[in-house]
Amino acid sequence: MHKHLLAAVAATSLAIPALAHADHHEDPVSGMADRALDGDTIAWDFVEGITTEVGPRQPGTPAEARGRAWAMDWLNARGFANVADEPFPMQTWVRGEEEARVTAPFAQGMHITALGNTASTGPEGIEAEVVYFPSYADLVAAPEGSLAGKIAFISHDMRPTQDGSGYGFAGPARWTGPGVAASKGAVATVIRSIGTENHRTPHTGGTSFPDGVEPTPAGALSNPDADNLERMFARAQGRPVTMHLTLTPQFLGETMSGNVVGEITGTDPSLPPVLVACHLDSWDLGTGAIDDAAGCGIVSAAALNVAEAGQPLRTIRVLMAGAEETGLWGSEAYSAAHIDEPIAVGLESDFGADRIWRFESNFRESNPDLHARLAQAIARFGVANSTNVATGGADINISRDQGGAIIDLQQDGTRYFELHHTPDDTLDKIDPAQLRQNVAVWTQVVGLLANEPGDILGE
Amino acid sequence: MHKHLLAAVAATSLAIPALAHADHHEDPVSGMADRALDGDTIAWDFVEGITTEVGPRQPGTPAEARGRAWAMDWLNARGFANVADEPFPMQTWVRGEEEARVTAPFAQGMHITALGNTASTGPEGIEAEVVYFPSYADLVAAPEGSLAGKIAFISHDMRPTQDGSGYGFAGPARWTGPGVAASKGAVATVIRSIGTENHRTPHTGGTSFPDGVEPTPAGALSNPDADNLERMFARAQGRPVTMHLTLTPQFLGETMSGNVVGEITGTDPSLPPVLVACHLDSWDLGTGAIDDAAGCGIVSAAALNVAEAGQPLRTIRVLMAGAEETGLWGSEAYSAAHIDEPIAVGLESDFGADRIWRFESNFRESNPDLHARLAQAIARFGVANSTNVATGGADINISRDQGGAIIDLQQDGTRYFELHHTPDDTLDKIDPAQLRQNVAVWTQVVGLLANEPGDILGE
Repeated sequence: MHKHLLAAVAATSLAIPALAHADHHEDPVSGMADRALDGDTIAWDFVEGITTEVGPRQPGTPAEARGRAWAMDWLNARGFANVADEPFPMQTWVRGEEEARVTAPFAQGMHITALGNTASTGPEGIEAEVVYFPSYADLVAAPEGSLAGKIAFISHDMRPTQDGSGYGFAGPARWTGPGVAASKGAVATVIRSIGTENHRTPHTGGTSFPDGVEPTPAGALSNPDADNLERMFARAQGRPVTMHLTLTPQFLGETMSGNVVGEITGTDPSLPPVLVACHLDSWDLGTGAIDDAAGCGIVSAAALNVAEAGQPLRTIRVLMAGAEETGLWGSEAYSAAHIDEPIAVGLESDFGADRIWRFESNFRESNPDLHARLAQAIARFGVANSTNVATGGADINISRDQGGAIIDLQQDGTRYFELHHTPDDTLDKIDPAQLRQNVAVWTQVVGLLANEPGDILGE
Repeated sequence: MHKHLLAAVAATSLAIPALAHADHHEDPVSGMADRALDGDTIAWDFVEGITTEVGPRQPGTPAEARGRAWAMDWLNARGFANVADEPFPMQTWVRGEEEARVTAPFAQGMHITALGNTASTGPEGIEAEVVYFPSYADLVAAPEGSLAGKIAFISHDMRPTQDGSGYGFAGPARWTGPGVAASKGAVATVIRSIGTENHRTPHTGGTSFPDGVEPTPAGALSNPDADNLERMFARAQGRPVTMHLTLTPQFLGETMSGNVVGEITGTDPSLPPVLVACHLDSWDLGTGAIDDAAGCGIVSAAALNVAEAGQPLRTIRVLMAGAEETGLWGSEAYSAAHIDEPIAVGLESDFGADRIWRFESNFRESNPDLHARLAQAIARFGVANSTNVATGGADINISRDQGGAIIDLQQDGTRYFELHHTPDDTLDKIDPAQLRQNVAVWTQVVGLLANEPGDILGE
């Protein structure tokens, strides 16, 4: 099928009318974006390569270092300039043995995974009565000291949303739930996975404990196991529900991670660069395909496509941040190291590989012409304009710290939390057509930004 | 919503026109079947209860014995007569530690589970070069002795089908693949899971080795891991692919299992009974919801519904067979013990909980009137008639051994092999509406059969 026809079909399948663009096929960047929609192979090559040849890339570990070496080889092979690994120290946590068993009134094993930054039960494990909290609010409302010697079970559940806002609603059960439970005396916490599917693959993720509260063991049960534990409470008829829990993660202390960078050099090195970011590390359970090899593939493919359309005015810098998952270590280190080097605009891709559906900037009022030109240029790929103010994500701390221009190319998150932080984050979950739509939109946006002579923020 | 309206809606939603049945609301069995379609709670109660209060029920183990005790309590509480546990000896195999790691050219862990009746690698595991066979036929074609010292990888894949026939196509890779590989010298075998989904939950299941071939270790990789291993071969550029495999299952020798039976007593005990069967054991990875607590719930609910419509002419015997998963031990033991007691007709439910779509008997030519009456009576539930000859399944060996009448109420298997023999075989996978359709169809069929005075087979 001819590419223009396929592009039209793709736009139709996204339920967005194809808009007339009389000029864009004469504009090299737009032509590259169009070709990416049905032809990009670069992003897939990155994701397939790193998930197959490296696999999981847990922050601060040798696996993450192998990922950096692999990515640098790939960037060099693809012709990026100034490819480097910028090292930084971090505090490293790694998973150990993981087992949960309900011991009474109904004996049954459960699938669990430890949450990042939690403590060990020791190899013998612990056994305690479980206290059931249907929601995070119920836990917060529990009296001080009421959980002494108990395991808290927070069963706060999550529903899928296109914009990922379900994570903001359900996330506190993981982010701060174990700390709240520990502050009330709990010896451990188990949560319902922060995820929207029903597989026996629990969702890991980081948590943190308040100052003065000693970390406890904490883990996520898979959703079917959380359902089962709820039913056990319903059928216990007042008998205590007890659980044996073995979680033996370790804090390794300080180890090294690093940020991988590479550049498409612009014709005017005096202009601040366009920063396109992703993170290279992943949780250890999956192979880090959607989180976030896809993002690194997308931003790299876009940078290469823009270069192929003709050397851009501004330098495009790719930042593949390290150690995002256990605390944004790489993004913070990058900002600290480069805070005095102005960035023209920052963008990140870190929400899977499903299609971009909404465009947001933080300069719609201060630079309305540029905002409108960008939004109009990607409307043909099915991307809606928005009055939301872009705030960026985990990988572009530097743009927030500098108070610089930010663009958010929002991806469809409906499926994202089925896979997020689970063993199921693997290559097969990526839809090649939607991945290419990401590259097309990014090519268009980055191409316009990198060839924009004026200040992006417009102040 | 009124039940008749809901029944009509349900029939419509199954894309089958509701047929006019002027008389069935005056017939107590048909009325019970209609009420079951929107109102049955018995089957769900069985499945929820045993999956929550017992969980996995591995053949020959104390967990299976707890399942029998639970089921007998349930049958007694529901008013079944002659509830008993009929013990039999069996050879028992249990799972141990399970780990697979590709060690070169790309180091990465993989999700694996041991296949039933396979040998142990020992706790230190084994490491060997992997030989890739895209299909079972490729393995069969490999020269004798060509796998000496190697691990065979059989990547034969499976696609979903409504009638489950994909299992017959893909199954040999598991059923006999490890034995074929061992006979050619392989030290171990890994197969692509015999399953149709892409989760990191490998599918277990039994295998067997030919006479004179010593069992080897063998396991199933999850589908995403098998994909990854295939890509590693594609990217290895001739370098050997090596794997470290630790699988420590154990043969426990002879232990006891049992068949649980219970009856709805008929008014004429001189007539052979209707046998309705399922199996009570399950693989250890899931909670055995679709395989096969659902079947036991369906046949029990149907028997109770028929009894509620009025004491039937014939006795209805429920057989909850033990130890199906590791070799049909219970079904064979039941046949051996009862071969001299004629069964009027045998039916089993052992293919999940999705809707019944096709009716088959082995007496369509010998007793066409009864076949037609049965088919016509369940057409309103969206069940098609068929010229296929019913052969029964794993749990009714006795009907085949006696050469007796058999009916197959074929369930939709499109989703079944997403869950079959995995940790994901849990209660949440059961669609309550489709479970009720099963109970409605079974109530109708068992009600007609149990009140049929003449010989079912018609010879």
